[in-house]
Amino acid sequence: GMFPVQIGRLHESITWLKSIFTSLSGYITVGVLDTFINRPALGILPPENFSERLKESLLSVAPKGLPQVMTMACGSCSNENAFKLIFMWYRNKERGRNNVTKEELESCMINQPPGCPDYAMLSFMGGFHGRTFGCLATTHSKAIHKLDIPSLDWPIAPFPRLKYPLEDFVKENQQEEARCLEEVEDLIVKYRKKKKIVAGIIIEPIQSEGGDNHASDDFFRKLRDIARKHGCAFLVDEVQTGGGCTGKFWAHEHWGLDDPADVVTFSKKMMTGGFFHKEEFRPNAPYRIFNTWLGDPSKNLLLAEVIRVIKREDLINNAAHAGKALLTGLLDLQARYPHLISRVRGRGTFCSFDTPNDATRNKLITIARNKGVVLGGCGDRSIRFRPTLIFKDHHAHLFLNIFSDILANFK
Amino acid sequence: GMFPVQIGRLHESITWLKSIFTSLSGYITVGVLDTFINRPALGILPPENFSERLKESLLSVAPKGLPQVMTMACGSCSNENAFKLIFMWYRNKERGRNNVTKEELESCMINQPPGCPDYAMLSFMGGFHGRTFGCLATTHSKAIHKLDIPSLDWPIAPFPRLKYPLEDFVKENQQEEARCLEEVEDLIVKYRKKKKIVAGIIIEPIQSEGGDNHASDDFFRKLRDIARKHGCAFLVDEVQTGGGCTGKFWAHEHWGLDDPADVVTFSKKMMTGGFFHKEEFRPNAPYRIFNTWLGDPSKNLLLAEVIRVIKREDLINNAAHAGKALLTGLLDLQARYPHLISRVRGRGTFCSFDTPNDATRNKLITIARNKGVVLGGCGDRSIRFRPTLIFKDHHAHLFLNIFSDILANFK
Repeated sequence: GMFPVQIGRLHESITWLKSIFTSLSGYITVGVLDTFINRPALGILPPENFSERLKESLLSVAPKGLPQVMTMACGSCSNENAFKLIFMWYRNKERGRNNVTKEELESCMINQPPGCPDYAMLSFMGGFHGRTFGCLATTHSKAIHKLDIPSLDWPIAPFPRLKYPLEDFVKENQQEEARCLEEVEDLIVKYRKKKKIVAGIIIEPIQSEGGDNHASDDFFRKLRDIARKHGCAFLVDEVQTGGGCTGKFWAHEHWGLDDPADVVTFSKKMMTGGFFHKEEFRPNAPYRIFNTWLGDPSKNLLLAEVIRVIKREDLINNAAHAGKALLTGLLDLQARYPHLISRVRGRGTFCSFDTPNDATRNKLITIARNKGVVLGGCGDRSIRFRPTLIFKDHHAHLFLNIFSDILANFK
Repeated sequence: GMFPVQIGRLHESITWLKSIFTSLSGYITVGVLDTFINRPALGILPPENFSERLKESLLSVAPKGLPQVMTMACGSCSNENAFKLIFMWYRNKERGRNNVTKEELESCMINQPPGCPDYAMLSFMGGFHGRTFGCLATTHSKAIHKLDIPSLDWPIAPFPRLKYPLEDFVKENQQEEARCLEEVEDLIVKYRKKKKIVAGIIIEPIQSEGGDNHASDDFFRKLRDIARKHGCAFLVDEVQTGGGCTGKFWAHEHWGLDDPADVVTFSKKMMTGGFFHKEEFRPNAPYRIFNTWLGDPSKNLLLAEVIRVIKREDLINNAAHAGKALLTGLLDLQARYPHLISRVRGRGTFCSFDTPNDATRNKLITIARNKGVVLGGCGDRSIRFRPTLIFKDHHAHLFLNIFSDILANFK
C-alpha cells in the first residue's frame, strides 16, 4: 500500500466525524461524506469523482462558448487568477513561436520586466471586483475599499450614467454610452503610448457595489467589439450577478453577444469561486494557474444540488416573473412618492432604486428592518434587492405592501 | 418573522441534504450540520455559535501576544489581507490624530497617492507567500510562479544560504546572516530615500517552496529588532510551517522572541486561512478588512476536532520525537551516500536534504513512488518531508529502510 509521507490528512481519529460516517452508511455514499471531512489539495490530489462533480455542477451551466472551468476559493481569487490567465495569454500572443528568454526567467524573479511585463487591466469607475491587491486596482466603488492600500497606474474608464425613465432619455443615454466607449478606446491608445499595455478589460454586467448601475445591451456588445479590435481579453465579472437572479443564469446572456466573453468569473451564490474561459486561454503549461486548495469539492456538491433544484422548480423563469412584479410595483411607488424614490431599475429580481440621500436611505432601511424586511444599500444612496431564487410574486406583493405603508408614513 | 429579501440561502428543498439532516438528528446538533450545508456571509451574518467555534479552534492555539484573529478563505487571501492590515496601521501612525483628508478619499478612488500611498512590503529572495497579485510581489521562489505577471518595485533582501553541517561552519554562517540583515536595513533606507516606504517585512520561518531554507533563531530575533527599529510591521507567514509539524504549534515559537511578531498568517493544515495579530493592528473601522465569505465556519469545526486530537494524542511532541528519528536516519544516510545526499536539515518532521541535481532528485522521487513512498521536491534540487502529525518513529524507520535500499541500488 501507499505510505503516507506527503499527504496531510488528520481525520482518521476524529471521533464525531467517524460517528456520522458510520451512521450515514445506509443513506449516502462514502464519497459524498469524504468530500465534507477531507479538504484535498485539489490541483494535485483531486477526489476520484471530481470531474463528474464538475460536469453535474459548473459545466452544466457553462456560458455558451466557454467550455473550460477552474475553481477558486473566493471571488477575489477568481478575478486575480483570471487576470493572470489573461496576462499569460497576452504575453504568449506577443511571444509568438519564440521561447521564453533567459532574461525573462531571471527578471521575473525580482519583479522586473521583461519577465514581469508592464501589463494592465482596464476597469470602470464605480466597478467592484474584489479587495485583494490586483482586484483592488480595478475596484472603484467606495473609498473605504481602497484607502491606504498602495495601487497601480491602470486605466479607469467612465461607466455610463443613464437617465431614467429610459424611454424618456433614449438619445441622451445613447450619447452617454458612446462617450464612455470612446474613452475606453482613448485610454487603451494613451496607455500603449506610455508602454503600459492593456491586456484585458473587466466589467460587471450590472455595477453592484457601485450603486446598481446598468448599461444597455448595445453598450456591452460594442465594448466586446472594442476589446477584440485592440487585442484585449474581455472579462465579465459575474460574481454578484451570476446564478439566475437577473432572469438568466448569467446576466451577460441578456446581451446576445456574437463572440462570447473570453473569461467569466463567479462566486457567491455559485457556492464556489472560479472562472469559465475559452479554449485559447488555457494555460500553456501545468501549475501556471495553481494554488493549494483551488476551491473546495464540497461546495461543488452543494452547487450540484442547487442547480438541480433551480432546474426542477424552474427558478430562473421564476426570477424573471417575480422580478417583473417587483419592478412594476416599484415603478408604481415611484409615481406615488417621487420625492423618496427615483431611478427605479432592474433585471429579474436584481432591482434597485435611488433615495434622495444617504441619510434617507439609511432611515428607510432601518424602518424596513424593524418591520421584518431586510434591505441592502449600495452606491451613495441606492437600495438594492437581492432576494433568493425562491422569491415569488406573492413575496413581491408582501414587500410592496409593507414598503408602501413605510413610504406613506415617512417623515 | 424575518422576511428573507436579502439572504441568499437555497438549501430548503435540497433533498439528500434533508435526508442526512433527518437521519442525524439523534447524533449531532442542528447547529453542526447547518454549518456544513449553509455558507454564510461571515462578516455580516455569522452563525450564532461562531465566537465559540473560534475559541475552541483558532483562539485555543493563538501565538503568545496575538489575541486577535481573522479568518480567510485561503493562504493567498490571508497574506493579501495581512498586508492591507499593515498598510492601514502604518498610515494611521503617519496620520497621527489628523483626520483622513478629502484629497486622500478622492485620490484613492483612482489608485493615486496620497489615498493609495506608495508603501511596500519587504520580502526575501527564495520566499513564497502566494500567487495573487500582492502576494506574488513578495514571492521569489520559481520563475513559473511569476512569469508574465506584472509586478511591483518592492525591496527584496537576500535570505541566508547556510553551510552544512552547521557545527562546522559556525563563523561563516554568522557572517552570512549578518550580511543579509545588513542588506535588509540598507534596503529600507534606500527605498525610503526614493519615497517608497517599507511598511512591513514578511518572512517564512523556513522558506518552503524555495527549497527548505533555514536560518538561525538568532537571525529571526535580530530581524524582528530591525523591523521595530525602523517602524515596520513584522509579519511571519506560517501557511506552510504552522500546525505542529516543526515540533511546536507555530514554527516561530522556536525563536524565543521578546516582542511577538505583529501578524502571523496561516492556512493549509489549519483547514482555514486567516491571521492572528496584535491589538494595535485592529482596523480602526468596520469593513476595512472584509469580503463576502471571510472563510468558512465548517472549516473551523474541522479544525476544532483536529486540535482536540492533537492535544489528546500529544501530536506536537510526537512530531518533535519522530522528527529526531527521521533526521538522525537522514544524517546517517548522508554519511553513507554523500554523493547523493547533502545538507540534511530539519525541525520536527519538517526535514529535507539536497540531491546533486534536478535530474537525480526527480529520479529518486520516481523510484520511491514505485516503492510506495510519496516524496515531494522543493527548490532546485531538494527533497522535503511533510508527513502527517501521526507520523511516528516506526514510520521513520520504515521509510529509512526503504530509502536506504533505494540509495544502495541507485545508478
